[in-house]
Amino acid sequence: MYSINANFLKLQKNYLFADIAHRVNAFKEAHPEANIIRLGIGDVTRPLAPAVIEALHKAVDEQASAETFRGYGPEHGYEFLRQAIADNDFAPRGIDIDIDEIFINDGAKSDTGNFGDILGKDCTVCVTDPIYPVYIDSNVMGGRAGDFDNGAWSRVTYCPCNAENDFVPAIPDHPTDLIYLCYPNNPTGTTLSKAELQKWVEYALRHNSLILYDAAYEAYITRPDVPHSIYEIEGAKRCAVEFHSFSKTAGFTGLRCGYTVVPRELEVDAENGERVQLNQLWNRRQCTKFNGTPYIVQRAAEAVYSPEGKRQVRETIDYYMTNARIMREALAEAGLKTFGGVDAPYIWLQTPGIGSWEFFDRLLNEIHVVSTPGVGFGPSGEGYIRLTAFGRREDCEEAMKRLKSL
Amino acid sequence: MYSINANFLKLQKNYLFADIAHRVNAFKEAHPEANIIRLGIGDVTRPLAPAVIEALHKAVDEQASAETFRGYGPEHGYEFLRQAIADNDFAPRGIDIDIDEIFINDGAKSDTGNFGDILGKDCTVCVTDPIYPVYIDSNVMGGRAGDFDNGAWSRVTYCPCNAENDFVPAIPDHPTDLIYLCYPNNPTGTTLSKAELQKWVEYALRHNSLILYDAAYEAYITRPDVPHSIYEIEGAKRCAVEFHSFSKTAGFTGLRCGYTVVPRELEVDAENGERVQLNQLWNRRQCTKFNGTPYIVQRAAEAVYSPEGKRQVRETIDYYMTNARIMREALAEAGLKTFGGVDAPYIWLQTPGIGSWEFFDRLLNEIHVVSTPGVGFGPSGEGYIRLTAFGRREDCEEAMKRLKSL
Repeated sequence: MYSINANFLKLQKNYLFADIAHRVNAFKEAHPEANIIRLGIGDVTRPLAPAVIEALHKAVDEQASAETFRGYGPEHGYEFLRQAIADNDFAPRGIDIDIDEIFINDGAKSDTGNFGDILGKDCTVCVTDPIYPVYIDSNVMGGRAGDFDNGAWSRVTYCPCNAENDFVPAIPDHPTDLIYLCYPNNPTGTTLSKAELQKWVEYALRHNSLILYDAAYEAYITRPDVPHSIYEIEGAKRCAVEFHSFSKTAGFTGLRCGYTVVPRELEVDAENGERVQLNQLWNRRQCTKFNGTPYIVQRAAEAVYSPEGKRQVRETIDYYMTNARIMREALAEAGLKTFGGVDAPYIWLQTPGIGSWEFFDRLLNEIHVVSTPGVGFGPSGEGYIRLTAFGRREDCEEAMKRLKSL
Repeated sequence: MYSINANFLKLQKNYLFADIAHRVNAFKEAHPEANIIRLGIGDVTRPLAPAVIEALHKAVDEQASAETFRGYGPEHGYEFLRQAIADNDFAPRGIDIDIDEIFINDGAKSDTGNFGDILGKDCTVCVTDPIYPVYIDSNVMGGRAGDFDNGAWSRVTYCPCNAENDFVPAIPDHPTDLIYLCYPNNPTGTTLSKAELQKWVEYALRHNSLILYDAAYEAYITRPDVPHSIYEIEGAKRCAVEFHSFSKTAGFTGLRCGYTVVPRELEVDAENGERVQLNQLWNRRQCTKFNGTPYIVQRAAEAVYSPEGKRQVRETIDYYMTNARIMREALAEAGLKTFGGVDAPYIWLQTPGIGSWEFFDRLLNEIHVVSTPGVGFGPSGEGYIRLTAFGRREDCEEAMKRLKSL
């Protein structure tokens, strides 16, 4: 008789977005005339850049002719894209990443989830709190999280991030094995300075921990001293994997492309005494369970690095970040305290002394604005809500006008 | 200190295609003037169908405008595609598949590999031999294969398929948990009749086994009595998952789209006594570790089911199958014995009493044709080579002309 992976039965049902949808629908039914503005979603709304569209059409045409048709590509991605990434995302920052250290994928969610395939199931886990739920859920599936008691997993170390510590997580006072860091952060929109990130790298090197660094929002960084890549920190290549995504950088949420950097220096002693490169393990994993990202999508991603692509993508990011500025300023004028929104498209709003859900309900019922309750991202999110800057300008402005009347 | 998944260290290095490349390159160096014809590859060569190209261009244009832009889609795929699949691949065969039982993916390789995520690691494995290596390697990674001794994994049951048993694998005389069946078969190109497939379903129901049925080549079936789906067999919904792919059906090897059917009837008793639907577990896995197939690719797949798409895709399949016929006939005239190639794009050629590699070398050195040695797919492949019909017509014809001179 076959059996299932019993760890799946431990997973907590995540009702966050279902709960939100339920409350919004109930409100809509009671107030069919209300003009609801959604500032809760983490999805982009601007179309793809013209340079990306042009590259897609061109690549599609190549697939229409036997002479230029491309079938199976390399599992780890075409060289043209890996080279563009190394040349544009790393070399200008003085980071030497070899193209064989770059693995193209169909989005950071897949790789952050799948990376556990190559890791031991006895590893302990460390996360900042609040947190993107995929990091924890994928470790629950992999049998690493332990048991869920009193709202927390027994083998997971939570590092609270809140207004009290200025959203700088304290380094754990005990060794942990797998450390998930996402900066600029989802959901709080806050960042870590190089000095703070350096402390995590030193901790990881001291304890032989692996940092899984999610840099999905790095393109939104505006301040010069905020690191775009963990590899800006000395020693990080020996302790960190880095995940990137074109989803938020270039509006690829529906096009699906990202990449993972697995440096060759990343080595670990296996049980049998063998010294093993994670790069080789990940390559074997990808060659066995993945068949590459669509050729046309990789051409689209390549176009993000063309001069026109860069300019157009920058315009869209500026559009969203102008939304963020408008929202931050209006919220401040309304006497509300916010964090994030300077180097990230997320604004983390401290509720006026009430719970996340209570404030969510007030915003929905009184000014017809949908947010995301912070507590949905973890216990330290209680007392906050997340607003995103990915909406249309006119919706942001209208929402802020209503907010001032609250 | 973090650790790796030590099962990865057990993986056998697969030198098959590296070995082939090495021998071909050595030959090319020694004979730079030789016109080498490659009949070894499993990749398609014909371009995408015009209806697919048109759908791609149209979907790309939608992504260029804010009004029609699509960001994150449903993890399990858009309803328009799942409905087209249910209506075209199943309903006409009298199979009732609900659209919530269909999960769109980026190709069958991902899902056949990833499906193990939701299964117990103590499950035993059963495969036909020769076999597509991903089935075994992904189970080695998952810790289910046991140890590799004398060319076989200790916890894997191998069912030989060869000329002696007419490529009909014998049902194991002992219970096994996870059974991988690929029909029409890669690499042999042979099929199972409904009566033979029925025996596997009965075995699986008797022992509470799970059949992982890979139907990637079903579009190549020409004979009316060969099943296109395991769900044509009574009871299969209670014991089988089915994997489909647009790679070979519609030339999507570089476009990446497939789907997995996980029927609701597929239930298992968990350790805690709970009755669990695999459909729910797989849905949770996909929602956590996958973010959907590109919207434009799903529109391309939808176009495969349009009247023009169907006709055009059929023309390409007919092109490849005409190649297969030409090859089969020529090989027979040359006095060689072949299998497959009637309901599949693969021809399984019995070598004239010599080993797979020896015959591979003869074909390469004497007539400059590249094949794939059957032994590379498993011990029962010894004494065979695989030829594919995915090449250009003129190359197939030229290769056969040379073969007759052998």
